[in-house]
Amino acid sequence: MVVVMDVNVSEEQIGEVTSRLEEMGFQAHLIRGVSRTVIGAVGSRAVDTLGLKNLPGVEKIIPIMKPYKLVSREAGDGAGSVVEAGPVAIGGPELAVMAGPCAVESREQFLTAAHLVKQAGATILRGGAFKPRTSPYSFQGLEEKGLELLAEAAAQTGLATVSEVIDQYSLDMSRDYVDILQVGARNMQNFRLLQAVGRSGKAVLLKRGLSATIEEWLMAAEYIMSEGNGKIVLCERGIRTFEPSTRNTLDLSAVSLVKCLSHLPVIVDPSHATGDRRLVSPMSRAAIAAGADGLLIEVHHDPPRALCDGQQSLYPDEFARLMLELQAIAMVMGRVAGKFTGQNARRFVAGVSG
Amino acid sequence: MVVVMDVNVSEEQIGEVTSRLEEMGFQAHLIRGVSRTVIGAVGSRAVDTLGLKNLPGVEKIIPIMKPYKLVSREAGDGAGSVVEAGPVAIGGPELAVMAGPCAVESREQFLTAAHLVKQAGATILRGGAFKPRTSPYSFQGLEEKGLELLAEAAAQTGLATVSEVIDQYSLDMSRDYVDILQVGARNMQNFRLLQAVGRSGKAVLLKRGLSATIEEWLMAAEYIMSEGNGKIVLCERGIRTFEPSTRNTLDLSAVSLVKCLSHLPVIVDPSHATGDRRLVSPMSRAAIAAGADGLLIEVHHDPPRALCDGQQSLYPDEFARLMLELQAIAMVMGRVAGKFTGQNARRFVAGVSG
Amino acid sequence: MVVVMDVNVSEEQIGEVTSRLEEMGFQAHLIRGVSRTVIGAVGSRAVDTLGLKNLPGVEKIIPIMKPYKLVSREAGDGAGSVVEAGPVAIGGPELAVMAGPCAVESREQFLTAAHLVKQAGATILRGGAFKPRTSPYSFQGLEEKGLELLAEAAAQTGLATVSEVIDQYSLDMSRDYVDILQVGARNMQNFRLLQAVGRSGKAVLLKRGLSATIEEWLMAAEYIMSEGNGKIVLCERGIRTFEPSTRNTLDLSAVSLVKCLSHLPVIVDPSHATGDRRLVSPMSRAAIAAGADGLLIEVHHDPPRALCDGQQSLYPDEFARLMLELQAIAMVMGRVAGKFTGQNARRFVAGVSG
Amino acid sequence: MVVVMDVNVSEEQIGEVTSRLEEMGFQAHLIRGVSRTVIGAVGSRAVDTLGLKNLPGVEKIIPIMKPYKLVSREAGDGAGSVVEAGPVAIGGPELAVMAGPCAVESREQFLTAAHLVKQAGATILRGGAFKPRTSPYSFQGLEEKGLELLAEAAAQTGLATVSEVIDQYSLDMSRDYVDILQVGARNMQNFRLLQAVGRSGKAVLLKRGLSATIEEWLMAAEYIMSEGNGKIVLCERGIRTFEPSTRNTLDLSAVSLVKCLSHLPVIVDPSHATGDRRLVSPMSRAAIAAGADGLLIEVHHDPPRALCDGQQSLYPDEFARLMLELQAIAMVMGRVAGKFTGQNARRFVAGVSG
Repeated sequence: MVVVMDVNVSEEQIGEVTSRLEEMGFQAHLIRGVSRTVIGAVGSRAVDTLGLKNLPGVEKIIPIMKPYKLVSREAGDGAGSVVEAGPVAIGGPELAVMAGPCAVESREQFLTAAHLVKQAGATILRGGAFKPRTSPYSFQGLEEKGLELLAEAAAQTGLATVSEVIDQYSLDMSRDYVDILQVGARNMQNFRLLQAVGRSGKAVLLKRGLSATIEEWLMAAEYIMSEGNGKIVLCERGIRTFEPSTRNTLDLSAVSLVKCLSHLPVIVDPSHATGDRRLVSPMSRAAIAAGADGLLIEVHHDPPRALCDGQQSLYPDEFARLMLELQAIAMVMGRVAGKFTGQNARRFVAGVSG
Repeated sequence: MVVVMDVNVSEEQIGEVTSRLEEMGFQAHLIRGVSRTVIGAVGSRAVDTLGLKNLPGVEKIIPIMKPYKLVSREAGDGAGSVVEAGPVAIGGPELAVMAGPCAVESREQFLTAAHLVKQAGATILRGGAFKPRTSPYSFQGLEEKGLELLAEAAAQTGLATVSEVIDQYSLDMSRDYVDILQVGARNMQNFRLLQAVGRSGKAVLLKRGLSATIEEWLMAAEYIMSEGNGKIVLCERGIRTFEPSTRNTLDLSAVSLVKCLSHLPVIVDPSHATGDRRLVSPMSRAAIAAGADGLLIEVHHDPPRALCDGQQSLYPDEFARLMLELQAIAMVMGRVAGKFTGQNARRFVAGVSG
Repeated sequence: MVVVMDVNVSEEQIGEVTSRLEEMGFQAHLIRGVSRTVIGAVGSRAVDTLGLKNLPGVEKIIPIMKPYKLVSREAGDGAGSVVEAGPVAIGGPELAVMAGPCAVESREQFLTAAHLVKQAGATILRGGAFKPRTSPYSFQGLEEKGLELLAEAAAQTGLATVSEVIDQYSLDMSRDYVDILQVGARNMQNFRLLQAVGRSGKAVLLKRGLSATIEEWLMAAEYIMSEGNGKIVLCERGIRTFEPSTRNTLDLSAVSLVKCLSHLPVIVDPSHATGDRRLVSPMSRAAIAAGADGLLIEVHHDPPRALCDGQQSLYPDEFARLMLELQAIAMVMGRVAGKFTGQNARRFVAGVSG
Repeated sequence: MVVVMDVNVSEEQIGEVTSRLEEMGFQAHLIRGVSRTVIGAVGSRAVDTLGLKNLPGVEKIIPIMKPYKLVSREAGDGAGSVVEAGPVAIGGPELAVMAGPCAVESREQFLTAAHLVKQAGATILRGGAFKPRTSPYSFQGLEEKGLELLAEAAAQTGLATVSEVIDQYSLDMSRDYVDILQVGARNMQNFRLLQAVGRSGKAVLLKRGLSATIEEWLMAAEYIMSEGNGKIVLCERGIRTFEPSTRNTLDLSAVSLVKCLSHLPVIVDPSHATGDRRLVSPMSRAAIAAGADGLLIEVHHDPPRALCDGQQSLYPDEFARLMLELQAIAMVMGRVAGKFTGQNARRFVAGVSG
């Protein structure tokens, strides 16, 4: 770390900072500039250095080391992690395409959707049983009934499953039903929930907070991993900006950058990022071209009748077409996208334009 | 609500939207423009109208009514609410000045701070026993030991107390020790926690989320109030913007606007908003001049040795001087600030410049 | 447009708004809701309706029609425009890859770069002769000498050229030297400059402002087109957000959305958007996969010695490899990328992995 | 400056950076940490150090010195500057209240407004003759006719005047008519315009850009001052954030911070910042309480009929009442606000509540 001293710092103040650094186990190197003195502190211990900011004469502290350790690229020996969850592996050569409706609404709706996304080539089924909603008056999810339907759909299709948890209660209820526990954007800094999913030992899908920096997102993953659970998949889902035309602004450069900074796999949710069905396919293609390890896409068999997020849900046919485009882009990236069956397999053999 | 139809909408699509509106209990008024058709929907029921967005031919839905009801200005009959919490009332003529250290660190530290802020004129004592921290490796609070010290300080000084809760566990533990339960910025959309503090029946200090819109903030208050608890004080604490020179950007216009939109009292936290001791007093004065009902200020008897947030904590003497300035500005606003005792009372009698 | 009236509006106020609307040439349709009255105004004239907001009893005005006309998708009869500039056409099946150094620095540097980007497959050469810099103490460009070198490089390579103009003086000087006049992000709302490039009749590359909404960006294009010049290419170059890890946040969803809203071609500048060489190739691939019509990429033959923006400039070999990846993604999109010559043509024939 | 090297840096790369620093006139101090090497560079010359970022093995450059010199607090010997403009001085004990309509619309409108703001206590008259508008179809200002009316109003009332310039042409036309040249938010980084007002030698009101950081704002002032003109008044007018309820977010902490960083006076424009008449008076009071040196306020004698910005213009009576409140807050700050004449003088003598 580098400690920058005030323009008018006194020798006594410099001495106090130096002593404090040495107490904390650092070696202090003094550099006297023309108008400023800075102190370089060398040491390996992870310490809470905020106290230093308060010493008289200190203008600012510039950290050199990253605050996260376990999730850093270096900790992964420079290679990416592969996270196993039920029948799938995320972060390997096969892209993880998670698809399904925003919420589990009914047995018929959900099983229909499950079979449709399976046929189109998805390998993981999504569906919310606990819905955190902005208004207390909106539909809040089917809870355990929804989880039972998720498990039934998984048994019928062989798909892995992912569903959101919002507190200890929903986590306890979900752990025996689903393969991947999702922590939503609004809970990214609900540290108690992060610790709880960390202790669960299950695979975790950690969405980026609406206005979380990349560093805060990785620190949230560090909370989970510091409980001994490294089965973490990050999910970029758009950040809040001044632009009103899209629900959020999808930050694809974050995907490429996180691949440089961390060993964890990263997927993209183009549905919540844009809130606009027309933009979901272009952003899905772009995410794979940017190096994402997968996608989380809302698909509904009848979007105009969806109980939530219908305006951003793909129609089954749009999703099937997208899967073929993704397969072509995945090849450019040296990867594969989706397991094709039925009509999509025939289309795939016939080529994208078929 | 107004439903704007696509440029190329068909008569059949218009018919379908009209029928759906009528099913939902609205009257539909068709307005055919030169290039667009819009449908005005008249009705009083609060309904989840998102489904309409998904109907073919609908371009967008423009809500006319606000989504919050119980917390709206109209629900307060146009007057502001006064929230009682232990020995104090927030929202009345007397400004609520909440002061104290970021975290309860030790008996000596905390009792010293409590007496200092009391002498300077504060009426409510703050101190964190459960600290949600960005890093899992940072100090996380003294938990129950901290709550005991809060209660002891309150008993010695007669001050009311406020402290943060972060989950059901900390809420259960805190309810018998403190007068006001604080919900922090990172938990503003932790809906389960909102419902829990709503059911607690205790006064709640609800901080605005880092990137929460004013409408989302009021909807979070609506969650609490829909559980039957109207003892809510809102707290503006800075929002996240592109500006790197301050920790956050204090949004004082939100304070004035919320006073127009809601009957709830609003206070301001200049310490977290700025992260910079030099800006705390100016922003405190500005908040009161803007019409805030109070302040939440970090004061530490020895900021350079604080375990958290020392760089933004006022020295006791700075705080005492600020209280006198606030008193003068409060008079312009037709209010009073603080209960003066000891030296500050003498200073106060002698005039601000004394 | 829809005029929403206050909760407590009087009949007289409603009458005044209705009369004013009729004066302005609109038909007024009154809709009396349970708690609100709204007035639908039907008419085709583009009028400045801000005055209505100020009438007593009016809460807000909701525009239904878009404020831009000439640049809208509808004005292009639903098809995209193709902009011709010197030897190239932008917006057609061939992607427009503009590449070269940030600034023209010297004859040797610039001609070297020109030949390198030509060999890799670029069709347009970029190079700044007038550099708008944040600091008055930074290198400001070679001005006319730089323009001469641009023209010389174009003559040697057959590439089209693009260079930034910053005022009437630089525009007058540039118009005979370059094919495309660039309006930079900081000048996106320099309305006098927009009018001047509009009157020039030359092709214009209009960068999105650092914090411009998509609507403001299209309105800036409308300024140019309202001077009779429709040869406009839009360029997304990242927006300013709270995220500090990248210079800006590349908003690729804006590209897809603008293609829905306007007939103008849109390209992407991944170099300024990210400010980080490691992210330029992933974001270039993503842009093409999202449907962009081209790219603007900084390439320097010796980035560590560049006078500006070296940390975001690709090495020639990185750029050559990127062109091959783009060609593969372009095929998925039904387009072609680049004209390959020399070594890259051989590599291309051998396949991307060759 | 501190140069942080990559984790895997080689000795050769360290040597190259060290040599380059010494070539540039710096002394290099090597600090070898446990996982990183950093190089402290000592020297007083202001150099463009961007080139260093491109050297192999360099991760990042951390500047220690501020990039602005002439406008820094230190350059003012720690004291604030007082800017003289016609009959007024800005930055001294008397607050500068600039008031008047958004645009000069007609002789009657403008002279009426001028007398009204004079009577209420304003000392500077504002009025736009050149209006930069988002739409090419909106009212663009009366140009020279407007300037003549400004001069006539000044002659009748004795008020100083301020008006916006948007290019060399409007600057040349304005310089003989007005006391203060305003550079608008959208032109804050129109560097040619900054240089031109710098060369004009006239007092300049420099608005902060919509998304300009404080450092960029001060660098824009540095552009003006580096042309030899130190008569600069800064104006905070709200920044662009995610919050849609107000037009912009007024950043009052920027005012207090700029007073720490620079010797230039700073005023606040609450009208453009909020876009909402109800918020203008609270934000005006807050600005003065935060330490601002003045205000720029839109006042119109008949806001519902204003040609621009009527919804944010104060009625004359609201403005007169605000001036009295400001006077009371100014006294707390040890300053005075406004020159009272006529009815406001009588009200003032009778006390704020009179």
